[in-house]
Amino acid sequence: MEKKTVRDILEGYKKFLHHDITVYGWVRAFRSNRFIALNDGSTIKNLQIVVEFSEFDEQLLKNINTGSSLKILGEVVESQGAGQTVEIIAKKIIVLGDNHFEELQKTILQPKRHSLEKLREEAHLRFRTNLFGAIFRVRSAVSFAIHEFFNKKQFFYINTPIITGADAEGAGEMFSVTALNLSDLPKDAQGAVDFTQDFFGKKTNLTVSGQLEAETAAMGLGRVYTFGPTFRAENSNTTRHLAEFWMVEPEVAFNNLEDNIDLAEDFLKYVIGYVLENCKDDLAFLDERFTQEQNQKPEKDRAKEGLIEKLENVLSKRFKRVSYTEAIEILMNSKENKKGKFQFPVENWGTDLQSEHERYLVEKHFECPVVLFDYPKEIKAFYMRLNDDGKTVAAMDVLFPGIGEIIGGSQREDRLSVLKAKMEQMDVDTEELWWYLDTRKFGSVPHAGFGLGLERLVLFVTGMTNIRDVIPFARTPKNAEF
Amino acid sequence: MEKKTVRDILEGYKKFLHHDITVYGWVRAFRSNRFIALNDGSTIKNLQIVVEFSEFDEQLLKNINTGSSLKILGEVVESQGAGQTVEIIAKKIIVLGDNHFEELQKTILQPKRHSLEKLREEAHLRFRTNLFGAIFRVRSAVSFAIHEFFNKKQFFYINTPIITGADAEGAGEMFSVTALNLSDLPKDAQGAVDFTQDFFGKKTNLTVSGQLEAETAAMGLGRVYTFGPTFRAENSNTTRHLAEFWMVEPEVAFNNLEDNIDLAEDFLKYVIGYVLENCKDDLAFLDERFTQEQNQKPEKDRAKEGLIEKLENVLSKRFKRVSYTEAIEILMNSKENKKGKFQFPVENWGTDLQSEHERYLVEKHFECPVVLFDYPKEIKAFYMRLNDDGKTVAAMDVLFPGIGEIIGGSQREDRLSVLKAKMEQMDVDTEELWWYLDTRKFGSVPHAGFGLGLERLVLFVTGMTNIRDVIPFARTPKNAEF
Repeated sequence: MEKKTVRDILEGYKKFLHHDITVYGWVRAFRSNRFIALNDGSTIKNLQIVVEFSEFDEQLLKNINTGSSLKILGEVVESQGAGQTVEIIAKKIIVLGDNHFEELQKTILQPKRHSLEKLREEAHLRFRTNLFGAIFRVRSAVSFAIHEFFNKKQFFYINTPIITGADAEGAGEMFSVTALNLSDLPKDAQGAVDFTQDFFGKKTNLTVSGQLEAETAAMGLGRVYTFGPTFRAENSNTTRHLAEFWMVEPEVAFNNLEDNIDLAEDFLKYVIGYVLENCKDDLAFLDERFTQEQNQKPEKDRAKEGLIEKLENVLSKRFKRVSYTEAIEILMNSKENKKGKFQFPVENWGTDLQSEHERYLVEKHFECPVVLFDYPKEIKAFYMRLNDDGKTVAAMDVLFPGIGEIIGGSQREDRLSVLKAKMEQMDVDTEELWWYLDTRKFGSVPHAGFGLGLERLVLFVTGMTNIRDVIPFARTPKNAEF
Repeated sequence: MEKKTVRDILEGYKKFLHHDITVYGWVRAFRSNRFIALNDGSTIKNLQIVVEFSEFDEQLLKNINTGSSLKILGEVVESQGAGQTVEIIAKKIIVLGDNHFEELQKTILQPKRHSLEKLREEAHLRFRTNLFGAIFRVRSAVSFAIHEFFNKKQFFYINTPIITGADAEGAGEMFSVTALNLSDLPKDAQGAVDFTQDFFGKKTNLTVSGQLEAETAAMGLGRVYTFGPTFRAENSNTTRHLAEFWMVEPEVAFNNLEDNIDLAEDFLKYVIGYVLENCKDDLAFLDERFTQEQNQKPEKDRAKEGLIEKLENVLSKRFKRVSYTEAIEILMNSKENKKGKFQFPVENWGTDLQSEHERYLVEKHFECPVVLFDYPKEIKAFYMRLNDDGKTVAAMDVLFPGIGEIIGGSQREDRLSVLKAKMEQMDVDTEELWWYLDTRKFGSVPHAGFGLGLERLVLFVTGMTNIRDVIPFARTPKNAEF
């Protein structure tokens, strides 16, 4: 028979009432030598174990501390106390393994408030805290909702390569991958590193995006998405950047820009709706934490909405769709711009939008998620479809309150001659990408896709503010511990 | 309104009968200037479009070739001909993009039989073939079933790091990751490469397994699994090895070896059952192909079962559980061994099993999937739990017909002192893995997990024989194209 989790018992307790049951977990607290708060990770809630002091060996009970791992056999009863509906009257208690309690008190497992920095340094232990338990359960739910959404819509999940020979993806600085001995690199006749002797016979990098490969798959399978790690070797030590992060990239044959925006909106609403429905306890905890954090700020800097309220509001409104050109006008005419309150003043059409401008549009002007589209071609990537005006491309960015850009995408340039000309203009190697060009030669079709950074979405859903706190083990400049 | 896929129309055609509908796809064949077989990747089946020659522009029809991309408006009617229940009477046909038909005939898109080697060289186009459409739809279904299985069982999906500072995972040769300029590596005073100047401030590699990090997560969240890419820099140019492949690694607090075997069996059966239920058309195609392949072999080398039959048989029988010690006895006493038919004769307890031995047990002796457990400690990894006999560890391998080992796992050594001693014996750096040892210090618990190579499972389910054919873009020695 399968083990019952704490969640099973709390949610289905009526089935178990007055039955003996076995439960496993870690001690979160042991109050008055009588009440053990037991947690097994299945839920943020603890299960109360009632220990009749006189019925157990004293030495056994002395051995039970915060952090101890226990197996308990006991009877499920309705709780007499406040705070829980059900509890277990312990009949048998087994300590499952070592718990070096003195040493534990020097770690983040000591039950007191620790800084998020400290928790990051002991990332291998922070899964056991309420906060990070909640974050990683929510992250898991977000990931599952993503797969479920696409599966329901007949998308196929594909794995694009992590190690790539392509140098041209153009989304940022790349890490090199090599099996050569770095202390003794082979050289060619010209004295350059001889990558023909490397594992793959050429220089290889870690991917910055699976999009180009996903496009080739969409040309056969129709609707596809990737969901995998991507990498940037950019020395950005900020709360918003990771060197290794997870990206979701759908790519859809026959879709135009409007279809793409519809998909992005449906997608975000589905995932957020899923979390609201399936992570109630964790969200309640995160919501309370969020409010406490806000209350420590000066009133003017506080978020207008609570966390759950914010998520519900995303679901209730249609995202506002605004062309880049309209957005520039709004920004140029804004009080903020006129009074010189933007760090980067908005002076003319063609300028790239900064985070402060995106946030103005979302948080002040429209007060809802905004989709900007039809950007100047000069500030966007080579593969985006040129619009008939000759000036803009069919790009789209979804902007979220507090986060800024959460999704970026476009309809892709499907006309071979236009694409080739664009690649040459922008110095993208057409020979290296021969296979990408092939997709425009053999039954080329309009198609579109976008990229979502998973961690950005998890930040939004959890109300956390540092991206290092929503991935189990962050990879950032000078940090690859664990 | 959302676009209808070919699958929507074929499966739900009764809703659409005598309605006009718009459909998109690529031409698989254009017969008799009258019947277009249209495919959009949503299913292996084509939708028949009936074109009344006289009602369309001749030039338009001349432009329609194999590979052409079309948008068609037409009426859904019950088909008069054999082979399909429904077809579309075209009213309007739009060619969506370029199709360089002459050049296409030099590619694998030319409708004739191509070798699998040739298809690999044009991996960006093979998504459009019946075979690879089927394989990648099945791979997607396998992946979704994996997530669904674990989600139903209250597991949390976690992402363990791809770039790792650890050198000690011990599962194989690693690739280096660096942001240093390989043509001009900084050196320290001793003339060694100065990795303190590298992005992460130390030497980093691509992960070979997320297990150790997953164990830390299981110590907080209880039941977790990873599903991500892993890497081996091993120069193995075989049909079974990839330098980059996807691995699934569940890790479960409170589970012992038997629980672990139960989980592995449930898991494999769930995934195979899901594919049988949800990929009927693709499996029917793969089954037929499999039978044709078998029929080309000498009778003695043919598989005993058809593909679907083989999958159904996995579901119907309980996996045979056999200790290593029993297995060695069976092998030593086998006719094959006595007659010297094994390349590696089985002479004594303690020897590592070779693929030929595993296949003998599965395919000849037991004729069903086999789980071997309790292996000699010397031939298994440092983290596996030492059994009370002092000689064996609580390891398990699931062996499948035609594939050999599909899952390898173990109960983990949860006793700090035993683990430490084992690491020292086996020369594993205890300082580098301080965080791993921590999990045995603070409420250590029995726990267990396993690893499944996704591509091995997809090989089994699709009946393919070369692992390069079940991943979109294979990474193998001297090959990182696309």
